[in-house]
Amino acid sequence: MKSYRKELWFNIPTRRAFINITPEVEQCLRESGIKEGLVLVNAMHISASVFINDDESGLHHDFEQFIERLAPYQPISQYRPNDTGEANADAHIKRQIMGRESVVAITEGRLDFGPWEQIFYGEFDGKRRKRVLVKIIGE
Amino acid sequence: MKSYRKELWFNIPTRRAFINITPEVEQCLRESGIKEGLVLVNAMHISASVFINDDESGLHHDFEQFIERLAPYQPISQYRPNDTGEANADAHIKRQIMGRESVVAITEGRLDFGPWEQIFYGEFDGKRRKRVLVKIIGE
Amino acid sequence: MKSYRKELWFNIPTRRAFINITPEVEQCLRESGIKEGLVLVNAMHISASVFINDDESGLHHDFEQFIERLAPYQPISQYRPNDTGEANADAHIKRQIMGRESVVAITEGRLDFGPWEQIFYGEFDGKRRKRVLVKIIGE
Repeated sequence: MKSYRKELWFNIPTRRAFINITPEVEQCLRESGIKEGLVLVNAMHISASVFINDDESGLHHDFEQFIERLAPYQPISQYRPNDTGEANADAHIKRQIMGRESVVAITEGRLDFGPWEQIFYGEFDGKRRKRVLVKIIGE
Repeated sequence: MKSYRKELWFNIPTRRAFINITPEVEQCLRESGIKEGLVLVNAMHISASVFINDDESGLHHDFEQFIERLAPYQPISQYRPNDTGEANADAHIKRQIMGRESVVAITEGRLDFGPWEQIFYGEFDGKRRKRVLVKIIGE
Repeated sequence: MKSYRKELWFNIPTRRAFINITPEVEQCLRESGIKEGLVLVNAMHISASVFINDDESGLHHDFEQFIERLAPYQPISQYRPNDTGEANADAHIKRQIMGRESVVAITEGRLDFGPWEQIFYGEFDGKRRKRVLVKIIGE
């Protein structure tokens, strides 16, 4: 069994964003030389997500509206951690809705995806350096 | 390390449905000959889910009501992608709530499940051919 | 390829709780002797979750409020399974929101975590014996 590990670093200039990281994960897969196995892609921070969906700006707008409706940023006073001076409590809940990680099959050296699947980094508390872990195991 | 791959195809006659695919995954596991490892089961389409819960019709009715309340199909105009003529924006959000994939342990050649765990395909935009990927790695 | 399996048992005295199980998973990893691979940690019951977030009591209070707002325990009559005499329908939906499982990378014999990542057992229908599965594969 072979294994491969890489961190992808981000410094998103806005508070929130969805970034298509499929090309970076494909590059990791090429570097790994692994042909059959699984790749785990996960946010290493608890106010960010990795998820798989379509790369379509209207859809991302809808996701943004959906998670903001479920866990609004304002008023900050509605969340308990914010009592201590932080203001990112909504980001932890948004990350919980969108998920921490995705596991993708590797077949014949490629991400084994359906027609529209793309991997996204979801940032909910940006403006600082944060990272995603790519771990591949297989042969 | 051994690996196994199979696509399960569906053509659900209704817009939405929950289908118990545990027998099909168990059949894949038998065909693979793998005794210890992991199986990844994921929707290959971005308007469908794979998740694990109980096979109980009342529960599925509650899930249906829950996701329809969070991301209603109507009015279609509330979603951005629908501006382009599509009408399945709610399905992408419903899939996000219910999840893309499940990873299940394989122990002594069997799905290593608790008493009520069953694997479901969740269709949120049916009436066409769609598929689920089963990928098994192990020994 | 090596594999390791262990069940972690719980008997939570309250209906709901979030329990940090990171030390127990780290103990499993040491027992396994596996240095590079993946660990799957999943609830074996369909009214409980395993998820990764921060070990911060204010945050857990917010999670509790969030899932209770989305899928309230009362009134029990709003859920279909409760028609049969059970009263834990909300717990199945709460588990769906918070997720069944987490997959974590193992690198150099350690859980490959970012700065605040911790693994939690989320109990939504306690006061009885329930369990979590830890399955590790790798080398």
